[in-house]
Amino acid sequence: MPTATAYAIDGPTGSFARTTIARRDPGPSEVLFDIAYAGICHSDIHTARGEWGPARYPLVPGHEIAGIVREVGSEVTKFAVGDRVGVGCFVDSCGECEQCRAGHEQFCDGPGGTIWTYNAVGRDGVPTAGGYSTCFTVEQDYLCRIPDSIDLANAAPLLCAGITLYSPLKRWGAGPGKRVAIVGMGGLGHMGVQLAAAMGAEVAVISQTRSKEADGRKFGASEYYAVSEPGTLKGLRRSFDLVISTVSGDQDLNALVGTLKVGGALVDVGLPEHPVALALGGLTGGNKILAGSQIGGIAETQEMLDFCAEHGLAAQVEVIGGEDINAAYDRVVASDVRYRFVIDTATFAS
Amino acid sequence: MPTATAYAIDGPTGSFARTTIARRDPGPSEVLFDIAYAGICHSDIHTARGEWGPARYPLVPGHEIAGIVREVGSEVTKFAVGDRVGVGCFVDSCGECEQCRAGHEQFCDGPGGTIWTYNAVGRDGVPTAGGYSTCFTVEQDYLCRIPDSIDLANAAPLLCAGITLYSPLKRWGAGPGKRVAIVGMGGLGHMGVQLAAAMGAEVAVISQTRSKEADGRKFGASEYYAVSEPGTLKGLRRSFDLVISTVSGDQDLNALVGTLKVGGALVDVGLPEHPVALALGGLTGGNKILAGSQIGGIAETQEMLDFCAEHGLAAQVEVIGGEDINAAYDRVVASDVRYRFVIDTATFAS
Repeated sequence: MPTATAYAIDGPTGSFARTTIARRDPGPSEVLFDIAYAGICHSDIHTARGEWGPARYPLVPGHEIAGIVREVGSEVTKFAVGDRVGVGCFVDSCGECEQCRAGHEQFCDGPGGTIWTYNAVGRDGVPTAGGYSTCFTVEQDYLCRIPDSIDLANAAPLLCAGITLYSPLKRWGAGPGKRVAIVGMGGLGHMGVQLAAAMGAEVAVISQTRSKEADGRKFGASEYYAVSEPGTLKGLRRSFDLVISTVSGDQDLNALVGTLKVGGALVDVGLPEHPVALALGGLTGGNKILAGSQIGGIAETQEMLDFCAEHGLAAQVEVIGGEDINAAYDRVVASDVRYRFVIDTATFAS
Repeated sequence: MPTATAYAIDGPTGSFARTTIARRDPGPSEVLFDIAYAGICHSDIHTARGEWGPARYPLVPGHEIAGIVREVGSEVTKFAVGDRVGVGCFVDSCGECEQCRAGHEQFCDGPGGTIWTYNAVGRDGVPTAGGYSTCFTVEQDYLCRIPDSIDLANAAPLLCAGITLYSPLKRWGAGPGKRVAIVGMGGLGHMGVQLAAAMGAEVAVISQTRSKEADGRKFGASEYYAVSEPGTLKGLRRSFDLVISTVSGDQDLNALVGTLKVGGALVDVGLPEHPVALALGGLTGGNKILAGSQIGGIAETQEMLDFCAEHGLAAQVEVIGGEDINAAYDRVVASDVRYRFVIDTATFAS
């Protein structure tokens, strides 16, 4: 049975330390791959710190995983040893329900539902452990291929941050002639700007301040607004066809609704801790839409990776070692990262 | 200048009394018609009682208006004397902005915006006065034709209640193979059930109690649920493609979101006084949609009237006299009407 060196946290107020975990020998349709990089998503932090409810400790987070295939099961047809691959937020689902058949495995309605990459229990009854580790075993149907042109370090965050923005941008029609605003210029937002621009939309960033304006324009935004400047959102009344909010903190959703054109859509991909106070009149008075979006299915994730390769897009990352995870968490919470921390597992060997 | 006998209210705590108001002689492109019936919409009550802010008193409400053309201007091409016609929630707009050109005159972006049928000021600087009156002058482009097969009394409420439900049902895909829930079985809801069923959808009613169940099934619902029965909404988890809420009172929107299938839409057409507390996770965890919808444009209103005629639909009404308006308001607030009060202007002559 393969073992992995991993970084695990032992409780909501604990810190990460190096450990060893077991991985499965790949079954007939499974792939074992060596992890090269794992991104740090804000969800990892919420989960590790128990902010979304009790977690299973020791916890190995990480659902932005990129690596190289080491071994394949006897019936694996999609991947071969040496292939560049990635795993995102989930590793299994029933495969048979309406959602799975429609390619929405992230909303599996089958028994057990979607099996998340970490803090869940796999089909084998063993708790799942994520990408802060040196290898990973997964069913081939839940693995994506990373195009050659994207460095694995820059590809890793695409498996969550990339698909989280790609899916709603595509679903809600970002493209030529459409004016799209991305709210928040963090790990999610910096992908949203690049993706929306590559889709041909006119892109605006709505950020707290102007500190990231140069980057935003480099990523493809033609407009940049700071809500710290009074009257900003009021001045943007009925401006956008599509607004995607990546913000997880408290925010004035009603003011964002006001920036939508008639019939426009505000799509939330953040996960605020508290309910928001929504004035429904803002939606009715303009046939407006507030929608949610959560990652994407496997086929759509592959499509996103191919789209990024075609358009030369990738995440901008800061590569760190395993020993840096604790400090990186604090920096993510302080929005002090441009734009995603990625853990280099080569640093795990002592 | 034509005069109309009307019922006006003189303040937020006042009551309706008979009075006389002036109407315009029809301009070249205007139509003067005799009002036969005017529906009582809950919006009339909110406005008359100052619940949506200060109103212009004396106020003549009424935006569900049906009648017969008395006189047409020299350039009127669309209507002739004797035609059966109706006016809804608005009587004018700029006609030139993006919204007007797209047929969304109710969201006019031009100077002055949409001019509402009452409690507004017309292009001539004169306050608008609604349908609780015996005649009405309006631009031909803001007038609809009422098909011969629909009694004028039953047609009047279509001009607001009908279009308010038709537009979102059509926009959000009610039709064969779709499971649609209508929340609330009042003036709006009873039209929603009929329209959704005529569009071919499988229709459920979600009401407070079962008191209107027989009517709901007669209108075309195949399922009827009462939220007063514990666990009702929980038992409907992931059931509907489309839910239309006609409720203006406080309600648990999160529980309604829970009844949507993945990718489903909850459309609000009610106008609650207070913001609702919305858990965004309910939308993200299923790519769900919360949308607003407000009446429809003139072309779509005509389309709805023709659809109703084709399918034999109309509002179920209780016809009252002008002297009954005060009592009717209290009964509407108490949800004690099946399903719309319609004022017969023939009672205005003393």
